[in-house]
Amino acid sequence: MIRLHDTASVVTGHVGTLYTVGMGPGDPELITLKAARLLGCVDAIAFFAKRGRNGHARSIAGPHLHPAIEEIRLDYPYTTEIALRDPRYAEGITQFYDESARRVANVLDSGRDVALLCEGDPFFYGSSMYLFDRLGGVYPTRVIPGVTGMSGCWTQAGVPMLHGDDVLSVLPGTLDMETLTARLRSCDAAVIMKVGRNLPKIRMALERAGLSGRALYVERGTMEGERICALHALTQEEAPYFSIVLVPGRQGPR
Amino acid sequence: MIRLHDTASVVTGHVGTLYTVGMGPGDPELITLKAARLLGCVDAIAFFAKRGRNGHARSIAGPHLHPAIEEIRLDYPYTTEIALRDPRYAEGITQFYDESARRVANVLDSGRDVALLCEGDPFFYGSSMYLFDRLGGVYPTRVIPGVTGMSGCWTQAGVPMLHGDDVLSVLPGTLDMETLTARLRSCDAAVIMKVGRNLPKIRMALERAGLSGRALYVERGTMEGERICALHALTQEEAPYFSIVLVPGRQGPR
Repeated sequence: MIRLHDTASVVTGHVGTLYTVGMGPGDPELITLKAARLLGCVDAIAFFAKRGRNGHARSIAGPHLHPAIEEIRLDYPYTTEIALRDPRYAEGITQFYDESARRVANVLDSGRDVALLCEGDPFFYGSSMYLFDRLGGVYPTRVIPGVTGMSGCWTQAGVPMLHGDDVLSVLPGTLDMETLTARLRSCDAAVIMKVGRNLPKIRMALERAGLSGRALYVERGTMEGERICALHALTQEEAPYFSIVLVPGRQGPR
Repeated sequence: MIRLHDTASVVTGHVGTLYTVGMGPGDPELITLKAARLLGCVDAIAFFAKRGRNGHARSIAGPHLHPAIEEIRLDYPYTTEIALRDPRYAEGITQFYDESARRVANVLDSGRDVALLCEGDPFFYGSSMYLFDRLGGVYPTRVIPGVTGMSGCWTQAGVPMLHGDDVLSVLPGTLDMETLTARLRSCDAAVIMKVGRNLPKIRMALERAGLSGRALYVERGTMEGERICALHALTQEEAPYFSIVLVPGRQGPR
């Protein structure tokens, strides 16, 4: 990883501010008043995109942008063509984030403010942190929190997640079966992110931890095409990457 | 706990909808567009309050309410006069939630919509779930997610919390020392809620888990009087109840 303060030219004039902006779980009305206001007054937006698509964050931002806004579209070099464990993946993605940071830095250097759009909350997983890691120490920054995808999912599912002294674990579905099972055994409520191809493993881990009966599956939470069902009612063996599994905490009466 | 469908009179006409609305972490601009819109069109709001104070959620709602709005103020019967472990506490608080649910139900029965205000996100701890538990099966309900207090705190602190495959644990500071230490040892990132008088115990558990060096303390995150510092720089032995401690995940370069 290149840190911009190692390489950036000396800045003599006014530099822009980097706003890292949470865009919420998907429903366009679930962005904050602050995010909407900032989107209306920054000079440029930056957003990550899969090739050929603009993505949710850019669509949500649309109605709040002025017509003269500059757009910095950061196209992922690949999505699934190279396996995550392939060393070429790590190398390619590092170069991609370095180059993305340089493109954003160029605009900041010219004195213009940039809003980096992030689905959900900026510091809760997601690519925007890799730009923040590179630019945060160099340029003035402000981070605007957002409603997480998991909050969007559990409120749509109508399941109170955490009462009283419940412990919540947020677990990536990419963990191996043993780790996943052990972590599930030591919490009251759980959210399993990054479901995708990990669905059969997640089912098994929940089974072993004795939590299958309580688990819910949520796909496209708060968005068009939303789907919510008991996990045991789901027959498919694979799910979209951003689907999540919810295990609500103890439903103690009070 | 009394469930309202056990006791409610048969409703023959149109009943109101219960909107359970997340009001965000404290900064009035951090509510969602949806929350702001709903607050402007419901017939009544309900909110929990400590005696003599309106609380953050009510203040945040203020500018969005129309002048004729009906207010259902639900005053906690006590805050710290009775210990949590005292059986009278549980009994008193159950009666309080039962009575609060009845008051809200009366307004819904008259066909009017009620917005129940919740600090942070409605299903992430908090009193509103106890009303949802009682009313959710009986009346039409919609839950509007909000930015959690923890998101407000970690974005203000400027610490990316979760990269890649990091596991997050959300732990109430009220847990005993052994449980707290064990849970801290098995995660990459942690948020410890409900700090208050538990501060010395939390410090010790972090020390034992080898995480003291990374821990940050946040008081009044996103609000006036906000205070953010390394936990080891904090000399006091007690903190406000809603302060939180953050342990950011692995700060791996990419």
